[in-house]
Amino acid sequence: MSFERIAIIGLGLLGGSIGLALKEHLPGAVTTGFDADPETRARAAERELVGTVCASAADAVRSADLVILCVPVGAMGAAARDIAAHLAPGVVVSDVGSSKEFVARALAEALPGVAVIPAHPVAGTERSGPDAGFASLFRNRWCIITPPSDADPAQVEALSALWQALGAKVEIMDARHHDMVLAVTSHLPHLIAYTIVGTASDLEGVTESEVIKYSAGGFRDFTRIAASDPTMWRDVFLSNKDAVLDMLQRFTEDLTALQKAIRVGDGEQLFDHFTRTRAIRRSIIELGQDDDRPDFGRSDHGD
Amino acid sequence: MSFERIAIIGLGLLGGSIGLALKEHLPGAVTTGFDADPETRARAAERELVGTVCASAADAVRSADLVILCVPVGAMGAAARDIAAHLAPGVVVSDVGSSKEFVARALAEALPGVAVIPAHPVAGTERSGPDAGFASLFRNRWCIITPPSDADPAQVEALSALWQALGAKVEIMDARHHDMVLAVTSHLPHLIAYTIVGTASDLEGVTESEVIKYSAGGFRDFTRIAASDPTMWRDVFLSNKDAVLDMLQRFTEDLTALQKAIRVGDGEQLFDHFTRTRAIRRSIIELGQDDDRPDFGRSDHGD
Repeated sequence: MSFERIAIIGLGLLGGSIGLALKEHLPGAVTTGFDADPETRARAAERELVGTVCASAADAVRSADLVILCVPVGAMGAAARDIAAHLAPGVVVSDVGSSKEFVARALAEALPGVAVIPAHPVAGTERSGPDAGFASLFRNRWCIITPPSDADPAQVEALSALWQALGAKVEIMDARHHDMVLAVTSHLPHLIAYTIVGTASDLEGVTESEVIKYSAGGFRDFTRIAASDPTMWRDVFLSNKDAVLDMLQRFTEDLTALQKAIRVGDGEQLFDHFTRTRAIRRSIIELGQDDDRPDFGRSDHGD
Repeated sequence: MSFERIAIIGLGLLGGSIGLALKEHLPGAVTTGFDADPETRARAAERELVGTVCASAADAVRSADLVILCVPVGAMGAAARDIAAHLAPGVVVSDVGSSKEFVARALAEALPGVAVIPAHPVAGTERSGPDAGFASLFRNRWCIITPPSDADPAQVEALSALWQALGAKVEIMDARHHDMVLAVTSHLPHLIAYTIVGTASDLEGVTESEVIKYSAGGFRDFTRIAASDPTMWRDVFLSNKDAVLDMLQRFTEDLTALQKAIRVGDGEQLFDHFTRTRAIRRSIIELGQDDDRPDFGRSDHGD
């Protein structure tokens, strides 16, 4: 089996990128889409993010054999309830949410008897909205699929094949393990970045203008992540609370250890730690998960 | 007055970039250089980072009217002592170190009676060594000069003009204030990045291979900074201890507040915080201090 009529609910960065990637890689697929925001729908139609932008979620999903929910995690339940009465028999409902146990529960509750196969493409930028999407967003990125234990293997296979067609590599994982892995590779980094940007912009001895001027010393890197969509990230932290708080606890312990090394002047411990962390970037670059050029290949020097 | 014979001690990322930028922007200047590492000297000669790579620091500085020390902060004192007996009358000694009160003290002690005008170009990449430098590193970046209170204004002016010729914008600042500003825009971000990369690579429930695979969720951003030179950064934290610990305290307070918001499920507080931090990135981009393209303009999607 393979999916031929795909409905995308939510036409922001992720939904828009899926639509554009489908058009490029599976031009035979019929795509429909809906977004609760009329301006987003209008812009999605102009950019042709999907074949047909529908006036209601019901219209978008009516004849779909795959529905992908691309809304913030906290809105998944409501989005699922909106479409529940309008789904075609045999449809598969999936999503792109960043925390999977919460979403699996919300979708199972809202869609009893429907085949739900949650997924999470680990890809994105700091931009959001209908202008943010692009067809190559998923290229060489992993998409983690977290099927429930009673999922139909043929449907899981079809969803895997779809993501592979969009350029992604697919991994099947338990939802609980996904939430722990992403807590460290994505949720904790975002929380830390949001924190430090807040700290820096609220100091009495250093002006915000100084922080901005001298941000090339390292701070600016954090501002990219801290410019991510506030609604999406509020929902991520609330929906993956336990794993995030657990990772945060470990981070705080490690930070306290380095703090003490600075306080007592233990240069050897600092040097050892900073040497260990250097190796992991090399592995990330070797695996094609980051740009090999210095400074991410930034071109703000004007060359 | 202007500098015509410039010696660079330390031919890594910063020293090499100054040499290359001098060649490009002030081709009339005579440049000499020295590095304590023979392999670095050989590579510096091959890349022609300076006009003449000398066999000793004494040879490099003998006829210079400006000496720029480009060694790790903790090595500044020793580098200054090495050249003290060989400096020409009227020479100005400067540096590029990331913490200025410490360096000012070390250089004043090692070079009694010599005009010392410390400086710090807020520029760099995660690379180090004689292959890392490039001529445009300082373009559109700030260089902070922290002259002692009895500095000769003509010499300060000449050093400012030199940095401007290399493409930098110059700011004059008190050394103590510099150290506080850089603690937040550079030192704290590096400490946080080093910490989180260490945390992620040392978990029992999540493998390092998983951390690497799913690093595009945010984590990879931190690995760039955490790949910076361990010696340099050990020295920065030890030499700017008070300001770093102060900023760390503020960061920890803010992190604790967000942690509590997650624990009690206060979505409104999270949303408000994440909305505030979004604005500061816009200011950084408007000021030309970061790349305006999404994801820093990374090209690892292959397009």
